[in-house]
Amino acid sequence: MDRVLSGMQPSGPLHLGNLVGALSNWVRLQDKYECYFFVADWHALTTGYGNPSQIKQWTVDLLMNFIAAGLDPEKSTIFIQSQVPEHAELHIFLSMITPLGWLERVPTYKEKKEQIKDKDLDTYGFLGYPVLQTADIIIYRAKYVPVGIDQVPHLEISREIARRFNYLYGKEFFPEPEALLTEFPKVPGTDGRKMSKSYGNAIYLSDDEKTVTEKIRTMVTDPARKRRTDKGDPQKCPVFDLHKIFSTEEEKKEIIEGCSTAGIGCVDCKKILIKHVINTLKPIWDKRQHIIDNPSLLIEIAREGSTKAKKIAGETLKEMKEVIGWIS
Amino acid sequence: MDRVLSGMQPSGPLHLGNLVGALSNWVRLQDKYECYFFVADWHALTTGYGNPSQIKQWTVDLLMNFIAAGLDPEKSTIFIQSQVPEHAELHIFLSMITPLGWLERVPTYKEKKEQIKDKDLDTYGFLGYPVLQTADIIIYRAKYVPVGIDQVPHLEISREIARRFNYLYGKEFFPEPEALLTEFPKVPGTDGRKMSKSYGNAIYLSDDEKTVTEKIRTMVTDPARKRRTDKGDPQKCPVFDLHKIFSTEEEKKEIIEGCSTAGIGCVDCKKILIKHVINTLKPIWDKRQHIIDNPSLLIEIAREGSTKAKKIAGETLKEMKEVIGWIS
Repeated sequence: MDRVLSGMQPSGPLHLGNLVGALSNWVRLQDKYECYFFVADWHALTTGYGNPSQIKQWTVDLLMNFIAAGLDPEKSTIFIQSQVPEHAELHIFLSMITPLGWLERVPTYKEKKEQIKDKDLDTYGFLGYPVLQTADIIIYRAKYVPVGIDQVPHLEISREIARRFNYLYGKEFFPEPEALLTEFPKVPGTDGRKMSKSYGNAIYLSDDEKTVTEKIRTMVTDPARKRRTDKGDPQKCPVFDLHKIFSTEEEKKEIIEGCSTAGIGCVDCKKILIKHVINTLKPIWDKRQHIIDNPSLLIEIAREGSTKAKKIAGETLKEMKEVIGWIS
Repeated sequence: MDRVLSGMQPSGPLHLGNLVGALSNWVRLQDKYECYFFVADWHALTTGYGNPSQIKQWTVDLLMNFIAAGLDPEKSTIFIQSQVPEHAELHIFLSMITPLGWLERVPTYKEKKEQIKDKDLDTYGFLGYPVLQTADIIIYRAKYVPVGIDQVPHLEISREIARRFNYLYGKEFFPEPEALLTEFPKVPGTDGRKMSKSYGNAIYLSDDEKTVTEKIRTMVTDPARKRRTDKGDPQKCPVFDLHKIFSTEEEKKEIIEGCSTAGIGCVDCKKILIKHVINTLKPIWDKRQHIIDNPSLLIEIAREGSTKAKKIAGETLKEMKEVIGWIS
C-alpha cells in the first residue's frame, strides 16, 4: 500500500471549505493508502509565534475535527507534529543541503509575506517553512501528498531537496514525493467570496444548528434577483455553488428550473441547502460532543498516533544516518 | 556554581593552537564552574555536508582529545551534539522568532563565506548557524561561554535571541549568555603564520615524538639570523612565541640573552622547546593510547554525557513549553 501524508495548520476553527476541500478527501484516502495525517503545530508558529497558547487550543480543536470528520485512528496514523521531534532532527540535516536561493524563489514565500502585513514574517523559520515541510513528508518516505494545484510549488521544492540528498549521498534513499492532485469544488462563503476565516464569511464545523441556519438564511444570492417575482440565475448565485456540493441531482434540476422561472424563492431554495448542510454536519457535531464528553479520548489518540509516527520516523533517521555515515 | 558551555567542531585533527587556545582553558574551568563541553557535529555539517562520514571520524578523535587533554567526565558533562536531539527541537522554536536580518548581519557570516571558496555555503543551514548555536547554549541556560574576542559577535546574537524570547513571552526565562573572555597567547605554526590545519603548519596532538621533533627542528626562525654567528631577535622569532607558552621564566631569559648575543644557536634553542612540547604532549599521547586500547571507554563517556545533557535539556524544553503555553 502506498504511503500518503498530509498535514493541516492549527491556526483557527475549521469551516465547510476545509471539510470539503481537504478533510473529506482525506477520509476517502484512508481506504486506499497507508495514511499519515498530522496537526502541523510547528508550522503554525511561523506566523503565530506571537501567541503559541492559541496554537495549543487550535491543535486540540483540529485533532477533534480530524476524528469528528471521520479520520480513523485504526486506519490512519494521526499525530501532532511537535510530538514527533524526529522531524526537527531531520530538519537540521536537510537545512545544511538546501540552497537559500531555492527557498527565496518559492512563489508562495513572497506572496504570503505580502498578504500578512500585520505580522513580522521576516524570520529565519518563515523562510525555512519548505525545509521543515520536506522533513515532515520524507521522514515517512511518503509517496503521495494530496494537494491542490496552488500547493504544487511547495511540493516541487520537497522533491528537489529529496533529489539533492540522494545525489549528494549517492543513494536513492528518499523517494521524491508526488502530488496527489485533487480537484476541489469551489466553496463560497456567506458573502459570495471564497470561504475563509479571515473574511468572516465562514460556516464552521463548530457552529450549532441555529447558527448554520441563520448564516445560510442570510447568505447573499444572485444580486440581480431583488424581488421574489424576479427570475434568478443559479450560475451567478453562491448558494447554488453550495447546492452543487451538497444537494442531489434531482434537487439541483428543480432549483435551476424554479429559480430561473421565479417558480421558487430564495427562502425555499435555501431551506433545501440548510437541510443538507445540517445533515452533513450533524454526525460531526455528535462526534465532537462525544469527544468533549470524553476528554481522555483525544489524549489517547494523540499518544498512540505519535508513538506509531515516532517509530517509523526513527527508523528512517537511523537508516539515513547509516547512508551518510553519521554517528548513531 | 555558574554554568559554562562550550563546543568545538569535529572538522579535523586538533593541534597545539587548539590545545593552548581552548582546551587547556576548558580543563581549568572545570574546577570553577559546572561545565558542559560538546562535540558540535551538526555544526560541522554546515561546511562539511559533502562528507558526513569524515565528520564521524573527527567526532571520535575530538572526543578522544577532550579526554586526553584532561576534560573529566566526573567533573563536566561531555557529549556529542547530535546525540541530544533536544537542541534540534529548541532550534525550531528559536528559528521562528529570529529575524533574517540579524543572521545576515553577523560579521563572521560573510567573512567565512568568502574564505571558504571551494564549498557551496549558500545554504539555509549555514545562514542559521547562530540560531543552532544559540539553542546549544541556552538549552542549558548557561551563564558563560568561554570565547576569544573574535567570537563575541556570535555570542551577541545569542544574547539577542534569548532577549527576544523573553520579551515575546513575557518572562526572563533564558539567561542572556555572557562571554567569558579569555586572552589566548599567539600560537604560530612551523612557518611563522598562525597555526592552522589549512596552512599545513600545525603540530597535531596526534603527532608522535619523532614528528613533533622534526617539525620544530625545521621550523622557521628570525629570518635575519642566517648564520650561527649572526645575532638574533627573539621578538621576531616564532619559535620564541612558543617558548613564551611552554618554557620557564629562567629559560626565556637565557634564550633572549643567548640569541641576541649569538651565544646560543637555533638548534640549542629549539631543543629546549622540543623538550617542553613533548612533555606537554606526552600525557596526552599516553591517554590517547589508553583510549585506543579501550574503545568502549569513549562510547561509555559519550553515552553517559548525552544522558546527563538530555536530562537538563529536556527539563528546559518542558519548562519553556509551559512558559509559552505549548502542548506538552
